[in-house]
Amino acid sequence: MSNDGLRQAGGAVAVVASRKEINHVSFEDTIKELVASVVPADPEAAAAAAERHDQLTKPKGSLGELEAIGIRLAAMAGRSPAPIPRRPAVVVAAGDHGVLAQGVSPWPKEVTASMVAGFCANHAAVNALAGVVGAEVTVLDVGVASDLPEHPRLRRMKVRLGTGDLSETAAMSREEAAQAVLAGASVAKDLIAGGADLLCPGDMGIGNTTPSACLIAAFAGRSPEEVTGRGTGIDDEAWALKVKVVERALEVHDPDTSDPLGVLAALGGLEHAAIAGVILAGAAARVPVVLDGVNTDAAALVACSLCPNAVGYLIAGHLSVEPGARVALEKLKLKPLVDLGMRLGEGTGALLAVPIVRAAAAALAEMATFEEAGIPT
Amino acid sequence: MSNDGLRQAGGAVAVVASRKEINHVSFEDTIKELVASVVPADPEAAAAAAERHDQLTKPKGSLGELEAIGIRLAAMAGRSPAPIPRRPAVVVAAGDHGVLAQGVSPWPKEVTASMVAGFCANHAAVNALAGVVGAEVTVLDVGVASDLPEHPRLRRMKVRLGTGDLSETAAMSREEAAQAVLAGASVAKDLIAGGADLLCPGDMGIGNTTPSACLIAAFAGRSPEEVTGRGTGIDDEAWALKVKVVERALEVHDPDTSDPLGVLAALGGLEHAAIAGVILAGAAARVPVVLDGVNTDAAALVACSLCPNAVGYLIAGHLSVEPGARVALEKLKLKPLVDLGMRLGEGTGALLAVPIVRAAAAALAEMATFEEAGIPT
Repeated sequence: MSNDGLRQAGGAVAVVASRKEINHVSFEDTIKELVASVVPADPEAAAAAAERHDQLTKPKGSLGELEAIGIRLAAMAGRSPAPIPRRPAVVVAAGDHGVLAQGVSPWPKEVTASMVAGFCANHAAVNALAGVVGAEVTVLDVGVASDLPEHPRLRRMKVRLGTGDLSETAAMSREEAAQAVLAGASVAKDLIAGGADLLCPGDMGIGNTTPSACLIAAFAGRSPEEVTGRGTGIDDEAWALKVKVVERALEVHDPDTSDPLGVLAALGGLEHAAIAGVILAGAAARVPVVLDGVNTDAAALVACSLCPNAVGYLIAGHLSVEPGARVALEKLKLKPLVDLGMRLGEGTGALLAVPIVRAAAAALAEMATFEEAGIPT
Repeated sequence: MSNDGLRQAGGAVAVVASRKEINHVSFEDTIKELVASVVPADPEAAAAAAERHDQLTKPKGSLGELEAIGIRLAAMAGRSPAPIPRRPAVVVAAGDHGVLAQGVSPWPKEVTASMVAGFCANHAAVNALAGVVGAEVTVLDVGVASDLPEHPRLRRMKVRLGTGDLSETAAMSREEAAQAVLAGASVAKDLIAGGADLLCPGDMGIGNTTPSACLIAAFAGRSPEEVTGRGTGIDDEAWALKVKVVERALEVHDPDTSDPLGVLAALGGLEHAAIAGVILAGAAARVPVVLDGVNTDAAALVACSLCPNAVGYLIAGHLSVEPGARVALEKLKLKPLVDLGMRLGEGTGALLAVPIVRAAAAALAEMATFEEAGIPT
């Protein structure tokens, strides 16, 4: 296991040299510094983009949501027009879940590691879709329940071998949660340093729609029934059991959302924590982050509870069929770009939105104005 | 004006050597041969694709509409998996409209030619979006009301200088309609011969949502109120007038949808005819055609009335906010992939769907099966 990346995760501040010297105050302080470094998206750049849109050679408003996204990209970049994202990067954060023991998924936990092997071998859905949009795929092991072999595409930053059973105990300790957040932030920082200009966090973790339901119920203040879905595919009986598990977890932990890290530690997954870190690091670097499905949406609630400014850098890639996804996006006030009945995760829904985001940036940056085109209005 | 392309438009059949020798029987016969050459999409390839999807490393059905599109692409190609489209081509068909005299649009007809100049100069919305997805842009003048200068991106196959006022007279003659259909087919054939493997017809024509409303009302059997929209943006008063114009046109022509070419000639636009031709040529070559907004949707109703097999090669790129778009797509039983409140035309909505179509093909073709990945199911 390597914690090298954590040293840089908090911006310019070097934090620690080895795991021995790390204590939970350091992790939390580093997150606080990262959060403090996120500036609000720029309303003046947004206004300039809106004004420019009304001068381009098209009927006003005729590009619909593409115009809204172009305006938001300008706000994120702090200038209008915003640069067109050229180098999207997917980070698939992977972890296992103690709550699987409660029967919330028909799949065994070993599938998490097998799927990670598939991501590395370039033959999973995320790879196929990343190829279409020219995105780099990085896999981040923050909590798979087995040792994984080295691979050029795999960042091995395991915090622990899967979470505890959140229906009985905390999923992880507060410091483990913070460490996983910083692992995600560190990977995102490295990708941005390497030229990535659009981040797509994704997830892999058998059982992880249960912690997502818990997090969404907690942060959005909704009932387990409203936010619990069928994940990879369960029947009515298994769904009812899953709802009970989410109910029990919320009773056991009684989450206090004024302490987002505490809620994450009690009810989340290690990959949710890492995705929250990817979001925070993207926002800190003013790099747009495209959300995927229910698991990234749940992580976004954590990130934006830690750092309200971060939501200005988020784009909802798609609407998962998981009911919690809609609830989370409504809470974040984000409108999904794609709605194709998908529920796979891995970053696949985010990747489908990447060309739409690029199109929004390209329309704003490359279209002529009526004046330039010599068309009287 | 060049009619060279028409010689090849009917498949292997050489039709005519010059305009002098063309008569309306030839045009219509050529269309009939083109229609007859369209084979139904292949249900066996579709079944094979559906079976393959259930073996890929993902929960069954978890890619939602991407799976449905992958299955349809296999049916179009006649093999599973279908090839991944690599070379999309946009054809923006342009024409003017006599009905503009009735006040159906706030824009003067000269804007059609100005926008065509913008497409050629590579600075319109269609160019920006084509750049994002790597699509070639071809502009087809079948009926702009002024002479247009030569340009490498422009195919000059003008049939006439804009249509007649369809609220008073036929928009064009039957032979003009047929000629414009074959112009579109000819350009599509050339693009396919040059390597294009995905066609995105688009439109430009100030006033053209009025003929679209007429065509959709006729072919879908709906009232003018249900299918008439605000086009580039008109107020309530202008909308009410536009509805009256559509009503009058339907009264004057009393369309008989068992004669689709007759309906097209009476109520359509030259660009609608050309787009219908692009669709027929794409279907004949088993090349998928991605529809754009209300004007291509209206043209698709014409094409599929002429040739019911053609619908098997159509993908609805997006849902325009024009009410006729939804009506037309329902009639065609096609589900749009993108719904972003757009109403620009030019092919922009189709282009946004291109990466989604590619993703559908890539998922089916490139993902490993559970067996290949060594994951027990």
